[in-house]
Amino acid sequence: MKESGRKVGAVSPCAACKLLRRRCAQDCVFAPYFPADEPQKFASVHKVFGASNVNKMLQELAEHQRRDAVSSMVYEANARVRDPVYGCVGAISSLQKQIDSLQTQLALAQAEVVHMRMRQFSTSSSPGAMDRAVDQAAMGESLWSC
Amino acid sequence: MKESGRKVGAVSPCAACKLLRRRCAQDCVFAPYFPADEPQKFASVHKVFGASNVNKMLQELAEHQRRDAVSSMVYEANARVRDPVYGCVGAISSLQKQIDSLQTQLALAQAEVVHMRMRQFSTSSSPGAMDRAVDQAAMGESLWSC
Repeated sequence: MKESGRKVGAVSPCAACKLLRRRCAQDCVFAPYFPADEPQKFASVHKVFGASNVNKMLQELAEHQRRDAVSSMVYEANARVRDPVYGCVGAISSLQKQIDSLQTQLALAQAEVVHMRMRQFSTSSSPGAMDRAVDQAAMGESLWSC
Repeated sequence: MKESGRKVGAVSPCAACKLLRRRCAQDCVFAPYFPADEPQKFASVHKVFGASNVNKMLQELAEHQRRDAVSSMVYEANARVRDPVYGCVGAISSLQKQIDSLQTQLALAQAEVVHMRMRQFSTSSSPGAMDRAVDQAAMGESLWSC
């Protein structure tokens, strides 16, 4: 990229200032999070959120929160670049489906444990053993504890 | 909001044009997705992505994809307004933790099923029964099929 617009003696510009073709001030809000050797990070957030919104969002946060905010914005922006229709909401939807499937599998496995315990205890003479088998599984007690 | 800038005879502006104080053209790209009676939807995406970026993103999509794109952008923007540090990446992280926990619980429950089957079959005289019990659980066969 042409850097003829930069003033002589200015610090080496961060990726944001380089892309925006502006002087990178000593107190540049972008510089700590968008180093010059990772230009793609800023290009993505600029494309999706816009430099001025990213600037505004960072200014509204305490300094110790900014690195996490930048990471999450870069993640979100990359997801939106990859999938312009759903962005990272696509990932949320897919994770929710995975949770539904795991919950179904878990319910089946726990039901199978109860079923086997009931079969096991039905041959036992201990009174109330069957109820205890159901209660243990329903309460999510350690399955290895019996 | 003052609407004195609108030309006489113009259509009633959508929420986007109302917020941007501009004339809402017949072919306004925002109008189908940002009705005047839901101003908060546009306010959120404008705050997070910026009207010009939303416009650009919509223009780059086929018309049948735009409604879903707007919904996902509104979801993402609301998440960022609620949680300026993590946005909807916070939700992804929490869903991933939930998946890890469910996978652990499922592994325990499946191990318990194998354990009980092995105990059950250890009293059986059928050769290879124990191996079959382990194989069935490991292959994720229906736990009610035995």
